[in-house]
Amino acid sequence: MKLIQRISTAYIFRFTSHQNNPAKTLIPLSHFTRFLSSSPSRAAAAAMDAKEASATDLKRPREEDDAAAAAASMETENGDQTKEPACFSSVIPGWFSEMSPMWPGEAHSLKVEKVLFQGKSDYQDVIVFQSATYGKVLVLDGVIQLTERDECAYQEMITHLPLCSIPNPKKVLVIGGGDGGVLREVARHASVEQIDMCEIDKMVVDVSKQFFPNVAIGFEDPRVNLVIGDGVAFLKNAAEGSYDAVIVDSSDPIGPAKELFEKPFFQSVARALRPGGVVCTQAESLWLHMDIIEDIVSNCREIFKGSVNYAWTSVPTYPSGVIGFMLCSTEGPDVDFKNPVNPIDDSSSKSNAPLKFYNAEIHSAAFCLPSFAKKVIESKAN
Amino acid sequence: MKLIQRISTAYIFRFTSHQNNPAKTLIPLSHFTRFLSSSPSRAAAAAMDAKEASATDLKRPREEDDAAAAAASMETENGDQTKEPACFSSVIPGWFSEMSPMWPGEAHSLKVEKVLFQGKSDYQDVIVFQSATYGKVLVLDGVIQLTERDECAYQEMITHLPLCSIPNPKKVLVIGGGDGGVLREVARHASVEQIDMCEIDKMVVDVSKQFFPNVAIGFEDPRVNLVIGDGVAFLKNAAEGSYDAVIVDSSDPIGPAKELFEKPFFQSVARALRPGGVVCTQAESLWLHMDIIEDIVSNCREIFKGSVNYAWTSVPTYPSGVIGFMLCSTEGPDVDFKNPVNPIDDSSSKSNAPLKFYNAEIHSAAFCLPSFAKKVIESKAN
Repeated sequence: MKLIQRISTAYIFRFTSHQNNPAKTLIPLSHFTRFLSSSPSRAAAAAMDAKEASATDLKRPREEDDAAAAAASMETENGDQTKEPACFSSVIPGWFSEMSPMWPGEAHSLKVEKVLFQGKSDYQDVIVFQSATYGKVLVLDGVIQLTERDECAYQEMITHLPLCSIPNPKKVLVIGGGDGGVLREVARHASVEQIDMCEIDKMVVDVSKQFFPNVAIGFEDPRVNLVIGDGVAFLKNAAEGSYDAVIVDSSDPIGPAKELFEKPFFQSVARALRPGGVVCTQAESLWLHMDIIEDIVSNCREIFKGSVNYAWTSVPTYPSGVIGFMLCSTEGPDVDFKNPVNPIDDSSSKSNAPLKFYNAEIHSAAFCLPSFAKKVIESKAN
Repeated sequence: MKLIQRISTAYIFRFTSHQNNPAKTLIPLSHFTRFLSSSPSRAAAAAMDAKEASATDLKRPREEDDAAAAAASMETENGDQTKEPACFSSVIPGWFSEMSPMWPGEAHSLKVEKVLFQGKSDYQDVIVFQSATYGKVLVLDGVIQLTERDECAYQEMITHLPLCSIPNPKKVLVIGGGDGGVLREVARHASVEQIDMCEIDKMVVDVSKQFFPNVAIGFEDPRVNLVIGDGVAFLKNAAEGSYDAVIVDSSDPIGPAKELFEKPFFQSVARALRPGGVVCTQAESLWLHMDIIEDIVSNCREIFKGSVNYAWTSVPTYPSGVIGFMLCSTEGPDVDFKNPVNPIDDSSSKSNAPLKFYNAEIHSAAFCLPSFAKKVIESKAN
């Protein structure tokens, strides 16, 4: 899950001559949805037979939450008017569509069977829905964070790429990751003695515990110490050289989370790591964000005096179908991220199901980049 | 490009209790679009300012083609009624959305700047449009075949995975691939003396030459011998043991292309290959089609007495963001697909731009599979 102060939201784009600055040319999708909602929903309902209509019977479980203000109305099978989230129905009635200034001109849509939760925390809109073919889905501010069908790829890779690259990790810090999936993966490592997590949004933790028990199982590990708070502040106050590994499960670097991709934050991370300690941070898509990645690599190269590497993996429900990771180590014992030294002893965590995605081969393969990206990244990393 | 007798088309799903057999519960999207087209398009036009409306000014370039029968009407900025392709406007007006029974419950959408071509060949509906952020896009029967932004990944991998795995390939057969992109890649290999291509649909070749000159450049190589015809029949008539490599750029294995994934076709391929010759065939998505892949691997293991391997790569505009390849060799000199022996001498093809995606590292990495797929595939392949 990509967490912490998400700022993306669902948008319809006005393409003008100022496309280089999409943030200036956006109409929030909620406005558009309100405009469109009544006629296409009615037309769609008429076009569907009763079975189809029942599959799109969107109920709003929490009448009291503020998200209702942005919701559009939708007519159901039996003629009732129910409220639906702003990111639904503007595309295909009964489907969720993900759009963001971070990936203009494209959208990925999932068919919604039922909305299970809708709320507004102090930081973001939180939605959980049952999809037709991807299991339950967690959405923050209009952006998919995880689906039951493919969460294994992200959670396993962001965790085991760093932890399998060092011998005997003992103290691990997770920034973000409030669904508990990264904790579930860290818990597979028998050497780990302490897992600190700093997540800003308690609603995400609560929602995950309620709707994603196979993900939130990570919170049940006795080694976990959960702090609800700001990850940037937490890191500033962390004792110097105290962690073997830091995993940053962050949102995109526009808006409030921007500082998590800049030098001062990386300096805090480097300070909190022991010599030869490692960090793994969510680092966007090679296909969509090479300019951002180039900057992150440059910043990391300045700050981390050990290894600086970029890895990527397949996650179907993330934009462009991939997500990248920035892996760095501090000065000290050498870390060769491409050749893992610390295989997982899956038997150490009896409550866990076997790994679905990660293995030692796919670990090494994740560092092999397409030529268009390799040239740029290697020129900055070395 | 995934070609040859495409049978997928754009659909809206009726989810019934028979979800296990989606093919029985589909409504063609064109029907749905006709129903919806007028009201959301009007609402959308009203919601947009003049600049937005001009960006969605969809013109139908060929008044005479039969696809018009399935097209819906759309009101443009100046109030004109123009026809639009069936797969547009049912989702967001002015956006193209891809849906298929091969990936139920999800859709990927691209914003359309302008429709450049719309036609109906003897085999399929053919559309070319200018997208907002993925360059020009080729669509056959509602399914994206290539975009200018990411075609490099598919074309380079389906070609160089087989050709870089054998020394000095001389005679190569391409089945499908009518856009010319695979030819462009084969032409990089200086050892190649003859490139036969059998493509069933001449319209695809013509459209590619008109709209995708950087892809269709492959046809300009003097070693190319293009045959318009049925690839299955072509292979049956091919001389035994005549090819070093066969590349099958096929469509999905439901409907008419089904036989391209079954034993008799693979037997024809094996017969046409020299001892130790190689085949690479498009083999769907690990995330979506493990059942199909399992069958393909079983069939190939029976027929190809050399190596049988599965590889995959990232292509953002293909469903789930990945595409797989089945790589097999016939009995004879050993082929170790995971360790390429024949690097590309890029200088051999002066008309070609440098490789964008493929390199020797990403070649080997493509054979590293996630654990959920590795178990299934290795149990069938060995």
